Amino acid sequence: MLPLALRAVTLGSALLVAAGVPAAAQNLAVTGATIIDGTGRAPIADGVVLIRNGKITAVGPAATVAVPGDVTRVDARGKWVIPGMMDANLHLDLNINLEHLILFEDQYDKIVLEGAQIALKTGQTTVFDTWGPRAALVKVRDQINAGQAEGARIYLAGNIIGFSGPLGPDFIAPAAAWVPKSFAKRIDETWEQGTGRALLWMPPDTLRPAIRKYTGLGVNFLKFGGSGHQDMDFLTFSLRQEQVIVEEGHRAGITVQAHVTSPESIDMAVDAGVDILTHGSISGPVYPIQPATIRKIVEKGVGISVLGLTRRAIAAQMKTDSTNLLLPYMKMAAENIRNLSRAGALLMVSTDAGVDDPIRVADSKTLASDTVDSRTALGEGHFNALTVFEEAGMAPMEILKSVTSNVARAYKLDKELGTLETGKAGDLVILDANPLEAARNYRRIGSVIKGGRVVNLAALPTAPVISSRKLRP
Amino acid sequence: MLPLALRAVTLGSALLVAAGVPAAAQNLAVTGATIIDGTGRAPIADGVVLIRNGKITAVGPAATVAVPGDVTRVDARGKWVIPGMMDANLHLDLNINLEHLILFEDQYDKIVLEGAQIALKTGQTTVFDTWGPRAALVKVRDQINAGQAEGARIYLAGNIIGFSGPLGPDFIAPAAAWVPKSFAKRIDETWEQGTGRALLWMPPDTLRPAIRKYTGLGVNFLKFGGSGHQDMDFLTFSLRQEQVIVEEGHRAGITVQAHVTSPESIDMAVDAGVDILTHGSISGPVYPIQPATIRKIVEKGVGISVLGLTRRAIAAQMKTDSTNLLLPYMKMAAENIRNLSRAGALLMVSTDAGVDDPIRVADSKTLASDTVDSRTALGEGHFNALTVFEEAGMAPMEILKSVTSNVARAYKLDKELGTLETGKAGDLVILDANPLEAARNYRRIGSVIKGGRVVNLAALPTAPVISSRKLRP
Amino acid sequence: MLPLALRAVTLGSALLVAAGVPAAAQNLAVTGATIIDGTGRAPIADGVVLIRNGKITAVGPAATVAVPGDVTRVDARGKWVIPGMMDANLHLDLNINLEHLILFEDQYDKIVLEGAQIALKTGQTTVFDTWGPRAALVKVRDQINAGQAEGARIYLAGNIIGFSGPLGPDFIAPAAAWVPKSFAKRIDETWEQGTGRALLWMPPDTLRPAIRKYTGLGVNFLKFGGSGHQDMDFLTFSLRQEQVIVEEGHRAGITVQAHVTSPESIDMAVDAGVDILTHGSISGPVYPIQPATIRKIVEKGVGISVLGLTRRAIAAQMKTDSTNLLLPYMKMAAENIRNLSRAGALLMVSTDAGVDDPIRVADSKTLASDTVDSRTALGEGHFNALTVFEEAGMAPMEILKSVTSNVARAYKLDKELGTLETGKAGDLVILDANPLEAARNYRRIGSVIKGGRVVNLAALPTAPVISSRKLRP
Amino acid sequence: MLPLALRAVTLGSALLVAAGVPAAAQNLAVTGATIIDGTGRAPIADGVVLIRNGKITAVGPAATVAVPGDVTRVDARGKWVIPGMMDANLHLDLNINLEHLILFEDQYDKIVLEGAQIALKTGQTTVFDTWGPRAALVKVRDQINAGQAEGARIYLAGNIIGFSGPLGPDFIAPAAAWVPKSFAKRIDETWEQGTGRALLWMPPDTLRPAIRKYTGLGVNFLKFGGSGHQDMDFLTFSLRQEQVIVEEGHRAGITVQAHVTSPESIDMAVDAGVDILTHGSISGPVYPIQPATIRKIVEKGVGISVLGLTRRAIAAQMKTDSTNLLLPYMKMAAENIRNLSRAGALLMVSTDAGVDDPIRVADSKTLASDTVDSRTALGEGHFNALTVFEEAGMAPMEILKSVTSNVARAYKLDKELGTLETGKAGDLVILDANPLEAARNYRRIGSVIKGGRVVNLAALPTAPVISSRKLRP
Repeated sequence: MLPLALRAVTLGSALLVAAGVPAAAQNLAVTGATIIDGTGRAPIADGVVLIRNGKITAVGPAATVAVPGDVTRVDARGKWVIPGMMDANLHLDLNINLEHLILFEDQYDKIVLEGAQIALKTGQTTVFDTWGPRAALVKVRDQINAGQAEGARIYLAGNIIGFSGPLGPDFIAPAAAWVPKSFAKRIDETWEQGTGRALLWMPPDTLRPAIRKYTGLGVNFLKFGGSGHQDMDFLTFSLRQEQVIVEEGHRAGITVQAHVTSPESIDMAVDAGVDILTHGSISGPVYPIQPATIRKIVEKGVGISVLGLTRRAIAAQMKTDSTNLLLPYMKMAAENIRNLSRAGALLMVSTDAGVDDPIRVADSKTLASDTVDSRTALGEGHFNALTVFEEAGMAPMEILKSVTSNVARAYKLDKELGTLETGKAGDLVILDANPLEAARNYRRIGSVIKGGRVVNLAALPTAPVISSRKLRP
Repeated sequence: MLPLALRAVTLGSALLVAAGVPAAAQNLAVTGATIIDGTGRAPIADGVVLIRNGKITAVGPAATVAVPGDVTRVDARGKWVIPGMMDANLHLDLNINLEHLILFEDQYDKIVLEGAQIALKTGQTTVFDTWGPRAALVKVRDQINAGQAEGARIYLAGNIIGFSGPLGPDFIAPAAAWVPKSFAKRIDETWEQGTGRALLWMPPDTLRPAIRKYTGLGVNFLKFGGSGHQDMDFLTFSLRQEQVIVEEGHRAGITVQAHVTSPESIDMAVDAGVDILTHGSISGPVYPIQPATIRKIVEKGVGISVLGLTRRAIAAQMKTDSTNLLLPYMKMAAENIRNLSRAGALLMVSTDAGVDDPIRVADSKTLASDTVDSRTALGEGHFNALTVFEEAGMAPMEILKSVTSNVARAYKLDKELGTLETGKAGDLVILDANPLEAARNYRRIGSVIKGGRVVNLAALPTAPVISSRKLRP
Repeated sequence: MLPLALRAVTLGSALLVAAGVPAAAQNLAVTGATIIDGTGRAPIADGVVLIRNGKITAVGPAATVAVPGDVTRVDARGKWVIPGMMDANLHLDLNINLEHLILFEDQYDKIVLEGAQIALKTGQTTVFDTWGPRAALVKVRDQINAGQAEGARIYLAGNIIGFSGPLGPDFIAPAAAWVPKSFAKRIDETWEQGTGRALLWMPPDTLRPAIRKYTGLGVNFLKFGGSGHQDMDFLTFSLRQEQVIVEEGHRAGITVQAHVTSPESIDMAVDAGVDILTHGSISGPVYPIQPATIRKIVEKGVGISVLGLTRRAIAAQMKTDSTNLLLPYMKMAAENIRNLSRAGALLMVSTDAGVDDPIRVADSKTLASDTVDSRTALGEGHFNALTVFEEAGMAPMEILKSVTSNVARAYKLDKELGTLETGKAGDLVILDANPLEAARNYRRIGSVIKGGRVVNLAALPTAPVISSRKLRP
Repeated sequence: MLPLALRAVTLGSALLVAAGVPAAAQNLAVTGATIIDGTGRAPIADGVVLIRNGKITAVGPAATVAVPGDVTRVDARGKWVIPGMMDANLHLDLNINLEHLILFEDQYDKIVLEGAQIALKTGQTTVFDTWGPRAALVKVRDQINAGQAEGARIYLAGNIIGFSGPLGPDFIAPAAAWVPKSFAKRIDETWEQGTGRALLWMPPDTLRPAIRKYTGLGVNFLKFGGSGHQDMDFLTFSLRQEQVIVEEGHRAGITVQAHVTSPESIDMAVDAGVDILTHGSISGPVYPIQPATIRKIVEKGVGISVLGLTRRAIAAQMKTDSTNLLLPYMKMAAENIRNLSRAGALLMVSTDAGVDDPIRVADSKTLASDTVDSRTALGEGHFNALTVFEEAGMAPMEILKSVTSNVARAYKLDKELGTLETGKAGDLVILDANPLEAARNYRRIGSVIKGGRVVNLAALPTAPVISSRKLRP
């Protein structure tokens, strides 16, 4: 029985503040739950997590961790506590069809915030946005970090260095014919920020200052195109160009990752010294990542943000569109995931997810891939990604790390995030079912605590722009 | 000399009311000017136009028309007074590029209003919108007619019967690939209103109720596609289908016009009994309208809304894009205009004009046709159309009628509009130069009186949506 | 018993001459068979058909028709004799993909001959080519008529008046980008012969001499575009233009037909006075041919060349490509065929068939419509067309007339062709099974006699160009 | 004075054999001319070149080289003798528009022969075909080498390793929609020969045997795609893949070159060890080849096959199509040529030339680039390339080497070809004007001797397929 003296809270109670304004940092004790701390260590039954001023101050069995009288106790008996989840690769503002680009041109920040809130609501306390409108992302990241808005912590790359903006050759160039040129130019610049296709032509000495300039624009990490987005067999930068980008990222104290899609683009990026391979599970339709490459990945501790489809999603796609060009890529990805997992690579949940648009989904209702175990629907994708790992035969504890500590490690944020250890951020998720029993149990989110604050999940997203869209008659 | 007791007004004075809210109907006497009444009769020097309750109550030389003491006197000495101008064929909301359709989907009414105000500001007291979003047009027309908003009187057709909406085959169908299907469908329906391409398949008995239904939707006249908008040599409806449309329009007491582009489409529409031929000056790139057809046009009194380019515009286009497919059409149009004019056909100023978008214009700055004597820029196009008539050798008085009484006559509105005669609406324009001397003098607009109210030209447009757009950095 | 004195022949015997060189006209007596003469009269058991100098000199029961001693007796006991079959609407040289147009540019005549021989081999003694390269068709027609080459009698229209050539807007215009302009121009002219799209712009007075000129180019009948080939809801010529074409055809003593695809295009062509409606069973995807139109068709005796698909073909297409745009047209065609048949319209077997290219078929092997009851494979299509009639519930005797006497009648050739009557051409087919029992029995061709000559079917085609193509490794 | 005993010949005399059958090897003495031997040494006035059995046996001033009595003397007084010219980069069968591919599918060998003869006729005794149909090229090369046909010596690469065939993504893929799939596949395979785009996906261990296999197919050297043909900023192979290709070429004893178009693709290929950079003067539209890269090129002795336009051609293109995307590339190429030349790089005349098609040229008569100083018209291009070098300020002797000894050296054929030295092949050109005075003088070809045989220039090409095409009416 709980001593009456303790101000026990029911989650979602009155101490939660108004929508969109995060609660002040609280001093909390989460008690009674089985704690899986993300380090790989055995779970702690009847554990206690103490959080003060947003940071964890103690973790351990109830028998060894005393709960002070001045903290708010969160009763989590019969539940499981895990570190806040993370998506290593998403795009909060993903929709780049013309309607979105035009209609929401002045609201990209609102969409980013909407995404950060959907992420948080579904257990993701930190997300890594690897392609998006830089200014809007920076703005929202800063608002959230300053406590001015609720949402998952955002780390952002801005543009994929070397790639065009949405209306350029790497994305939907033919659509540009139907809008004013000035609009197309402006949209592309919103994404490119001076790091577009022109960089491919640059000799290293010219490329270096261009990258250096970009690292000063408030991005948290760099991502460059290691292979083409349309012609996925083509390479973009030379090895020495890639090395320049990596050097400049590291010089600025941030990690660097490469968009890769082929065996050689992967091997080359590893040699160039990247920290992370974006969708490093994709090696094209024919050849798996080579064993020697995998060895280098493991030795260097390169993180792999993994893209995959569940078996059910693949089956659904086979049925509705068996000629889908990406299917062979996804089948090969399944083999790569198995091989990387066995070799002990640092695998990370990753989705390409963004705020899903009900109108777009309605339009493509015959496209099974969008509705069966969606990969890219924000709030859904990360759960399916965990299932992909389960289907690949990964150990339950490794799966848990893939969505928590592995991500922090690969992004060099493991001193602050990723595990439930003293000194780390007070980010945790309370689950109503044991995630080590089945990947589907990650969906059983009871509550989310970010930076020592209990999040009012019901209020999220607070001001939806996209996810609340309705088909008009 | 004016008796001091008379409250003489300087145009634009304090008696003009706040922007966007039309002044109440005034009792006015326009005095001192040379009056050209639009009937073809000789100008009246030192004339007086008396207006009470919005209608003209007397017109004549100062010697014969006494100015009562209770009217506001508008001193127009040294100026010329003509009936309010009219455009027989424009499209207030003309821009159908994707950016417009998407960005302004819920503001079509505002654009229509903006257009009606630009029209009024440039001397057009009445305009005929021959293709546009019906509901928005109806709404704004009614607001203006009810005195709730300032603007030119609008008469509207809504859709071109038998044609698709903007994202269908008659306009920019390929663009539809880049927007949600539901959006494309909705946009097309906004225009089509049940009168799209499907009607071409209909046997007469099925077509009739479809047209009858449409006549009940608040449109002021009917316009049908007599020939294709893309393939201008193709016909759309059969003669008997056309006859059904004409019959149903007349049954509903409204005029009917046909979009025509070839010698046969013109002849056929005349036989079907149309009141007006939309851009009836266009007969394709090779053959002029046939003499026998012209005879029928004249005998039946069919109105011709004329499209043409000034010599300067043709020369500019020849220079920048001599392969422009429409150039031969425009050259042939010049011949048709001469022939129709000589035969005494009822010619009308017509432009296809809509609110011009500065962004669109900036994008196409190399396209001379958009900048040299623009045909379709609302507020400019009608002045250039008058020059086209002048270049065709039309008599000055005929030119004046083409933008006033001819339009009223063709639309069967000559009991109410089009001339400065007792009983007609108090619509007139005061010009600072003699329009019978040179067509360019129509641009010298001193003031505009609509329905007996002096319009505050400086305040128009009151809430611009499109015309105030600026290129963003 | 047959008198020994008679030189009985076994079909295919030594009296047949070398491949490609037709036998000289023989005097023949076909004896012993059941004769179905194509007039609709009851079959004649144990009948005799006497042919002298290529013409039928007597038909009747053996009891009434004596077989002279100087004729070659063709023993047809146990078989059925019908008039030579006809296809009212085919295109011997149908393939207009670029490979064909380029590779065979100088061999169109050889392809036409190949087609005429495949037609003859499959029981068609006369065919009506309604779209093809005029010069090649004229050449082969004349060779065959002069006895210099073996093949079905050809009657030809050349171009469809008002339509472009193969590389123009009515067919595969985008392909023209990939060949020299001079080639595209030459190919289009090979088809157009001065009767292309430019005619749509012509006023009647200009159109008339253009048509008159064309009637002098050796064509056997005229065919004009009554509605579009791409946009099938659009009309091409006005009623009075159509009347000019009909008048000029009739003035030249030849029949006139219209390519029609919609209810109105059908009604209009009937009013213009056409003799035949090409694929007059096609009225679009929504509305059937109107009852009033059908009444006019019947009253005027307008022939309908029918296009249809067998139920099996429709089912196969539904399975492989249920979104095929033509499917709704074909379903509506089934309804039209039933209505026309019940009303007593002059229905004719018609196929659009041309020499089938094994390479094309291999390429499109997933396209069921090309392999299940093919409509357009020459030598197959007419058999399937007869099944379509059977499925529509037509009486067996009417079906027989649709492929024999009806065609002759509609083309105003019933004095010479179409029935087994005295004075008619000695064209007949000996079937091994009763065609009145099942439409499939028309496939049971025992032998073909054309103009009194027994055709060496085994030798046909004598010099195949297309049908013998083999997939190269 | 010449001793009468010597059988002096007038060039083109009766000793020349019938068209297409090369003369037997002769023993020749070319006398009286100024000899420029291609080594860079000073010209030899009144020199003698002695040739026996196709090889040069002595070169020197008349004073030092005796002319034996058994040789045929070629009197070249007042003329200039240079080594046979070479084009380091052409495509004898260049036209890959659909009409060519289809029409001449079985005649690629004839076109290759035609090209080899046009080359020879215009002074090129050896050509390097860097992309073409392998089998046809091998066949003709062997025929020429065996003395069975007249023509320039051919060295061939076959496909560009890593690139698709003509109807694949690196060339004119959209055209493939208009031909049978089997044709497109066959054409692509004719070029690809197992070395197409699929190789880009291959890890090095898989790539190596694929390349090894290809070296066994009779090709004389390897060429791989170092950067994209459409997206010229993209790279194709990784450095280690490139190294595999280079290693396998060298293992097989043949040279290896890379198609390069950007600063990095050039630097990378040099690092990979290529012998030649195909169009190594092209580094994109913005940045020149980097100084450090140029140093490596010079140090390693990498040959540069140069593409450039004359000033006149650039001016003409600016006039007719100033937006031509390749213009900036060509302007940058001019800068690269100057830099490479100054640094002492091994520059080679190169053209991309193929047999010009009069029909294609007629079609594009407005395209100045095809008619003013054509780069790609075989028989013209190499002359213009020499002018490009002259305009770049290269020393006359260096220019001469660029079309003779430099090419032999870069291709590792300098023991046999490229200079007039004892032991080399008896390939020389007798010019009527001094090539060291002006580049245009290379056009003044008096006669061509190949392998010790005087070529009957007037008879070439002996059986033209393409160059004799005429526009048909």
